[in-house]
Amino acid sequence: MKENNITKIGIVGLGLIGGSFGLALQNDKTIRLYGQDKYHLDKALELGLVHESLTDDLIPQMDIIIIATPVDTIPQIAKNVLDNIKPGALVFDTGSTKHKIAQAITGHPNRGNFLLAHPIAGTEYSGPEAAFSSLFKGKINMICDTHQTRPEILEKAQQIFDNMGMQTLEMDSQEHDKHIAYVSHLSHISSFMLGKTVLDLEKDEQNIFTMAGSGFASTVRLAKSSPDTWTPIFMENKMPILQALEEYIDNLQAFKVLLYRENRSKMKALLQKINHIGQIINKL
Amino acid sequence: MKENNITKIGIVGLGLIGGSFGLALQNDKTIRLYGQDKYHLDKALELGLVHESLTDDLIPQMDIIIIATPVDTIPQIAKNVLDNIKPGALVFDTGSTKHKIAQAITGHPNRGNFLLAHPIAGTEYSGPEAAFSSLFKGKINMICDTHQTRPEILEKAQQIFDNMGMQTLEMDSQEHDKHIAYVSHLSHISSFMLGKTVLDLEKDEQNIFTMAGSGFASTVRLAKSSPDTWTPIFMENKMPILQALEEYIDNLQAFKVLLYRENRSKMKALLQKINHIGQIINKL
Repeated sequence: MKENNITKIGIVGLGLIGGSFGLALQNDKTIRLYGQDKYHLDKALELGLVHESLTDDLIPQMDIIIIATPVDTIPQIAKNVLDNIKPGALVFDTGSTKHKIAQAITGHPNRGNFLLAHPIAGTEYSGPEAAFSSLFKGKINMICDTHQTRPEILEKAQQIFDNMGMQTLEMDSQEHDKHIAYVSHLSHISSFMLGKTVLDLEKDEQNIFTMAGSGFASTVRLAKSSPDTWTPIFMENKMPILQALEEYIDNLQAFKVLLYRENRSKMKALLQKINHIGQIINKL
Repeated sequence: MKENNITKIGIVGLGLIGGSFGLALQNDKTIRLYGQDKYHLDKALELGLVHESLTDDLIPQMDIIIIATPVDTIPQIAKNVLDNIKPGALVFDTGSTKHKIAQAITGHPNRGNFLLAHPIAGTEYSGPEAAFSSLFKGKINMICDTHQTRPEILEKAQQIFDNMGMQTLEMDSQEHDKHIAYVSHLSHISSFMLGKTVLDLEKDEQNIFTMAGSGFASTVRLAKSSPDTWTPIFMENKMPILQALEEYIDNLQAFKVLLYRENRSKMKALLQKINHIGQIINKL
């Protein structure tokens, strides 16, 4: 795995996620980091997220390759990378959806070198400037369809995640996409549309400034997220998100009816039941 | 205004807001605090939020009375209090809706002693245990229909808010309710219904624990809010909230159509436009 005791790691996509991997892996002096990014390479080098550029001809030299580009670009990049890796190399992606990527690489001769991963970590900021070394510390890392990854490759990946302080959990890729639609993608949509509603209605923005409290800021925080990252995520996870959205809209409609009919007791009972979510998120 | 240089302040409703007023006002040793609360009086005395009980017969001795009960109870309490105050006393409420309260006290002989106020401060927690002295520091305090309050009473109120470090802004009570529906009440509903949707869909709560990140926690935070506080607020501000909800649901439906049709370019353009909210909330 190592030449002269140096592990060569290539990172494709040097935004918040890829860049933070670069920073988190730098503590280990036996690691040399190579980066590739259509738009952000110079910035990433300037910020020191990676040590040097990852040109395509260097791919076969890498011990590990991390793909952290927008989800819709991952299938093609994954196939290209798998076509060119050396034996024993580990490749993993970090996308927020997993099933389409799983499908794209099914049957690839080097499928066993690939691990589908999704570190559940992020902020509302994006790009290389948003990267920071502790992003993944203490976070959950979902890994999917692990029976398709060769055991020694899986172990190599596990070691990296362990060293970074992540807790790894396994799940089927389709199950992953269904659950993540509810607990992540739907929150982003609810937040984006809340932002839109308020922007539409408050033509005079001064009122948003003055009257919005910390509650609004918290609820609308995800509306700052990158459209370049999130448009592909929404598209890639279309069906589970449509289902989650439908449920959400139904619940809002039902609330509207309770309000319209001024049904206080039913509304209070409903809100009390929802309060239970507090016991769950307080443990996050 | 003062007897023996002591200002007597009565607080009706000793939850998060009333209790925090008690704590914030204690720094001034010339103030004696009296509290009234159907459920929480003992707890509030034990926590030292106020110095002693405010029985109804003490109302005429108060220099200032703060009404911080659920919004649907404020109109009746405001009228009772105004019936019994001494000349020169200041009475203000802290409710999240203002117009119905304004209507309830219109024409009261002591209307000039009353100020409609709404300190835009709070957390998702409630009750006397949630109170803390710095809750209002640096926050906006909306005051409404101030031409109905006698100038010397208004000045007295302004002094208190200034001393507590709040920035006071004036607005018509109906305008206030319309704007606050969008920037506060709607966020609470979107958060409550997000909580409900996820709880409904994720029968196995373990998945919420493991897969929910900080984004979900932020968006659903307000779903922990007290049903006793919020059911009345939603009911009191029914019409503006129904309008805001309708807009919100329309926006979610429109998003669903973009997703269903996989209209990437329109979705990206939409999200980019919404990103503008970031520049606004970053200033909060």
